[in-house]
Amino acid sequence: MDIFLIVPVCALIGLLFAIYAYFTMKKESEGDELMQKISGAIRLGAMVYLKRQYMVIAVIVAVVTIILALLINPFTGLCYIVGATLSAAAGYVGMKAATYANARTTQAAKKGMANAFRVSYASGTVMGLIVVSFGLLGLSLLFVGLNAFTSLTLARVVEVLLGFSMGASTIALFARVGGGIFTKAADVGADLVGKVEAGIPEDDPRNPAVIADNVGDNVGDIAGMGADLYESYVGSIIAPMAVGVAAVSLNQFKGVETLNLVLLPMMIAALGIIASIIGTFFVRSSKNESSAIHRAFNLGTFASLLITVVATWWLVDTMLGSQYMGVFWATIAGLVAGFLIGLVTEYYTSYERSPTLRIVKSTETGAATDIISGLAVSFESTIFPVIIVAIAILVAAQQAGLYGISIAGLGMLATLGITLSVDAYGPVADNAGGIAEMSHQPKEVREITDTLDAVGNTTAAMGKGFAIGGAALTALGLFTAYTQAVGLKIVDMLDPSGLVFAGILIGAVLPFLFSSFALSAVGKAAGFIVEEVRRQFKDIPGLMEGNADPDYNSCITISTNAAIKQMIAPGLLAIIAPLFVGLVLGPEALAGLLVGSITTGFVLAIMMANAGGAWDNTKKYIEAGHLGGKGSPAHKAAVIGDTVGDPFKDTAGPALNILLKLMAIVSAVFAPLFLV
Amino acid sequence: MDIFLIVPVCALIGLLFAIYAYFTMKKESEGDELMQKISGAIRLGAMVYLKRQYMVIAVIVAVVTIILALLINPFTGLCYIVGATLSAAAGYVGMKAATYANARTTQAAKKGMANAFRVSYASGTVMGLIVVSFGLLGLSLLFVGLNAFTSLTLARVVEVLLGFSMGASTIALFARVGGGIFTKAADVGADLVGKVEAGIPEDDPRNPAVIADNVGDNVGDIAGMGADLYESYVGSIIAPMAVGVAAVSLNQFKGVETLNLVLLPMMIAALGIIASIIGTFFVRSSKNESSAIHRAFNLGTFASLLITVVATWWLVDTMLGSQYMGVFWATIAGLVAGFLIGLVTEYYTSYERSPTLRIVKSTETGAATDIISGLAVSFESTIFPVIIVAIAILVAAQQAGLYGISIAGLGMLATLGITLSVDAYGPVADNAGGIAEMSHQPKEVREITDTLDAVGNTTAAMGKGFAIGGAALTALGLFTAYTQAVGLKIVDMLDPSGLVFAGILIGAVLPFLFSSFALSAVGKAAGFIVEEVRRQFKDIPGLMEGNADPDYNSCITISTNAAIKQMIAPGLLAIIAPLFVGLVLGPEALAGLLVGSITTGFVLAIMMANAGGAWDNTKKYIEAGHLGGKGSPAHKAAVIGDTVGDPFKDTAGPALNILLKLMAIVSAVFAPLFLV
Repeated sequence: MDIFLIVPVCALIGLLFAIYAYFTMKKESEGDELMQKISGAIRLGAMVYLKRQYMVIAVIVAVVTIILALLINPFTGLCYIVGATLSAAAGYVGMKAATYANARTTQAAKKGMANAFRVSYASGTVMGLIVVSFGLLGLSLLFVGLNAFTSLTLARVVEVLLGFSMGASTIALFARVGGGIFTKAADVGADLVGKVEAGIPEDDPRNPAVIADNVGDNVGDIAGMGADLYESYVGSIIAPMAVGVAAVSLNQFKGVETLNLVLLPMMIAALGIIASIIGTFFVRSSKNESSAIHRAFNLGTFASLLITVVATWWLVDTMLGSQYMGVFWATIAGLVAGFLIGLVTEYYTSYERSPTLRIVKSTETGAATDIISGLAVSFESTIFPVIIVAIAILVAAQQAGLYGISIAGLGMLATLGITLSVDAYGPVADNAGGIAEMSHQPKEVREITDTLDAVGNTTAAMGKGFAIGGAALTALGLFTAYTQAVGLKIVDMLDPSGLVFAGILIGAVLPFLFSSFALSAVGKAAGFIVEEVRRQFKDIPGLMEGNADPDYNSCITISTNAAIKQMIAPGLLAIIAPLFVGLVLGPEALAGLLVGSITTGFVLAIMMANAGGAWDNTKKYIEAGHLGGKGSPAHKAAVIGDTVGDPFKDTAGPALNILLKLMAIVSAVFAPLFLV
Repeated sequence: MDIFLIVPVCALIGLLFAIYAYFTMKKESEGDELMQKISGAIRLGAMVYLKRQYMVIAVIVAVVTIILALLINPFTGLCYIVGATLSAAAGYVGMKAATYANARTTQAAKKGMANAFRVSYASGTVMGLIVVSFGLLGLSLLFVGLNAFTSLTLARVVEVLLGFSMGASTIALFARVGGGIFTKAADVGADLVGKVEAGIPEDDPRNPAVIADNVGDNVGDIAGMGADLYESYVGSIIAPMAVGVAAVSLNQFKGVETLNLVLLPMMIAALGIIASIIGTFFVRSSKNESSAIHRAFNLGTFASLLITVVATWWLVDTMLGSQYMGVFWATIAGLVAGFLIGLVTEYYTSYERSPTLRIVKSTETGAATDIISGLAVSFESTIFPVIIVAIAILVAAQQAGLYGISIAGLGMLATLGITLSVDAYGPVADNAGGIAEMSHQPKEVREITDTLDAVGNTTAAMGKGFAIGGAALTALGLFTAYTQAVGLKIVDMLDPSGLVFAGILIGAVLPFLFSSFALSAVGKAAGFIVEEVRRQFKDIPGLMEGNADPDYNSCITISTNAAIKQMIAPGLLAIIAPLFVGLVLGPEALAGLLVGSITTGFVLAIMMANAGGAWDNTKKYIEAGHLGGKGSPAHKAAVIGDTVGDPFKDTAGPALNILLKLMAIVSAVFAPLFLV
């Protein structure tokens, strides 16, 4: 167990590096007074929102903790609350960094792209490393502590640790849904009245919803995404731990100590953090060109991947022995799958490729055909990711059984430290662009931030691929953990009681119901914003002429209230549905439910992400001057498509990935209740 | 077996009654010369399309027949081709009746609603009874013939008969997809240029696509629907036959002759035909009020249901014995489920209910929110049908095991003779309205046909509920038949090879891919129509002023060519995908594929049907004068939503129900190939 101490040490190194990056970034100048004022308003709005969101979630977490402590195990309750708290903290710190970095990036952009890139990427690094460090630190310290200070067996310790993952997933779901509703309500509302009705440009300071829109980017795309990936990361580590401790693996790995099967995932993750830090040093660019930045990203990511691959080989060889290198190959299967899904995502959403160009063509005949072809493309885009994951499952299973399937998910997420940095820097650049616009900076500044944002969008495709593919594999691992916890040896779809099939059907429909909640929440909240913006345009004299300031705060308050209120129902659905089915219909039906929800949730999540991305890029392509450019009928059609895609890609879609894991982990944690 | 002779006799009675209804309807006057000319043009276009479609399908059917005869069994090939031919014939006759009835309905409408109703309903009756009679006649005669003239055992006879159902499903899929593409391409194309660009009303004779649009109603909504329900009907009878003959039921039904378990479904269907005919006599109205017609429909449907329920009780008691009345209750579970799904469908798509009114409200902020809220409502609308079917499965399984689940589907479809009559009369009334418009009849005539159409839409909800719910239960039955044919005793989702799970994922994505094909086919074909209509408006002098005739035929030809070409890929997908997975990954993966496809296919089918219905009614509600009525911004938004919904509800949605059954039956029929 001594070697295991490198796990918290690596996590601590990651944390220190994040702190270093944070203060490096904060030393930069925040620009002139107006920039500081705007940035301050965004930061304040974001922090006010986050605090209110956390207060509501805190009540739910407290209730669940008490239930866990009373019905399951006090230690499970402890793990749950620690997992939830660290998740909230990671979101908070990451967002704090991002809201300090936005104006600083705008200011740095005045001195060129390389400069702006350095600042925004530092903020991304904070987020990336905070998330993985908090996750691994919490997990490993609890693991050590539970082993040292309690009399729990190893199997029970791992079972209790599932609570940590459940805490992470709870926060993630609420943060994703709440943040997603906030950001898209503000975005859609701002666009519908500003761009479509009043004909003023995006990020125009006369639009009362413009600050809310920027706040939304931070609470949705940054805090929400941080909590989301923290959850994925923790889940991908705990799932193989839980499978590894179970009897089924013990038969398979003869001669291997159970402890090693349990420790291996955390060890891989630990070296992944070091690999991510090393990779970060490659992400440097002294050239003011987007291609140089692109290259730097690729270099950094590939360096981290390579180091992780070598480290995993060594770890598997050392900890399990050379006859079990199948575990290594299972991890590689996951990694390759994530990479390929990234390529497919890019193919289906890039406007340099035929799928999105088909959507572009359809805008010539109006919004209806734009929507139809966007849906057609996104439906089609699900086939390859699913086949890729199916092949990864088969390879991983062939190499290392159910343990292999669950550790394949970790293959994608071990280098999250760097891939999340790449993901998290994009919204900072986006915000910097908004500040440039509102503070009337020269056109070149905005161009630089736009380019940075665009590079981020492209490189983020791989991160998305890892997140989507990892979610499916992790959820499968958690499903396996559930069946073991509840003592199901088989889950037979031909069960003549019909329970498994009924469960599958109910599970399959839950992602649709959940998405419905999310979509209508955005629709409703955006409606409130539309009314408020219309009211201000009408009631505030001189606003359209630029002689009066709009009331930004009212839009922030409206978005905040709507998001907080509307996030509760979908969030509770994810916790209550599996408990209800497990208690009423029993463990077989619940197993069916999990399989049904993983299946449709996975497919729907890809479809929504790609639909949103493709519609977004369709609009951007036309705005670049094609088909008549901005203001043309084709552009109007594309704006409608983009608006429909917004809640798809930023609210419902990403939340689905969490939903299916949360339901699996709730089932695993509450398993003792379903045994009666 | 003597009592069994009543099956072909009942089918023959149904056939005779259909012929009687056909000639009664044909005796009516077809109206003036212009009406005859228009009706003739529609009939000709529809027949030309149907012949071309059948020629293409014939090639595919011939190839499949040869493959079946060589690889499986010559008798299976025989059953396949008979099933396919009878399906094509049913579609042909039903459409012929409808194209004769449309102008006759317009003419009858001059003498009042009761009169118009009588004529159009006679045409619906032809379709309804032809479909069930052909289905049951073919099935029962083949059953008798195979038992009498071959040495096949009873189990082998039923296995061979699955070919009949596969033939029916093949035709249905191509007819639904081809007809669906034709009708929606013409409809969307006509609307986009006519209504939106040129601002002329629907069914305006100046629109070059208007005849194609009416042709489409016949080839899609009538011939397509006929083949579709023929397929459902046959499948719902054969599935319990196949489950009944298998070993698993033999343990359950101790002391019951296997033959009786096999005969029971056909006997129930036979008495269902008689019940439908009796019910038809109640569908009479002498009053010119829509409420009277509504009442007449309900009376007829309930009378048929009641008779069928009593007959089923008697049959189960006589054939299986009083200790197995669980089979009766399983049938009732299916029937009640179908009825409830009908209510839910009506709730989610009626503009008198809150879900559609939410969509109406969202049109105030434009097309984007209209689409978002429509999707949100339709996603939500999947939950209750799925829960209802899940409960029906549990009840049926508890009462009579897997045999119970498969016979529950028949509970919904036994009275198809009358529910399809109700479904099939609507499009006739719709077409009659088009003819009234084009032949410049007084406004009252159009009002009568519109009212009839509207009544049809409401009463059709129950039929839709039966079709959707029946599809899921039948597909489950066919899935069971497959596992028995291939010798799988269990299908374990925890199978450590990962094959079952990989299969589920692949199966889950197929309905999405299939829908993508259908949606983009409509998009493409509609694009061609748009270009042609625009060209004619520009090139034909005096067209817009009404001084020159458009070239209707070119639009018909374009729709025909596009539909024929685009239907092939999705159709082949349904046949090839299960074969491919079965051969490459083996029977466990194929079992997973079927479960995955049934699950997502079912949910997606409901979602698409309800989205289309709700958007359609949103538009109708606004056109009735709300939110500014026709031409208002809200109306424009609603037209976009309606156009998106068109291929949902009339192309992709209904075809999905067939897809999942076709894949299950292909697997069952080709099972011997996967055993190696």
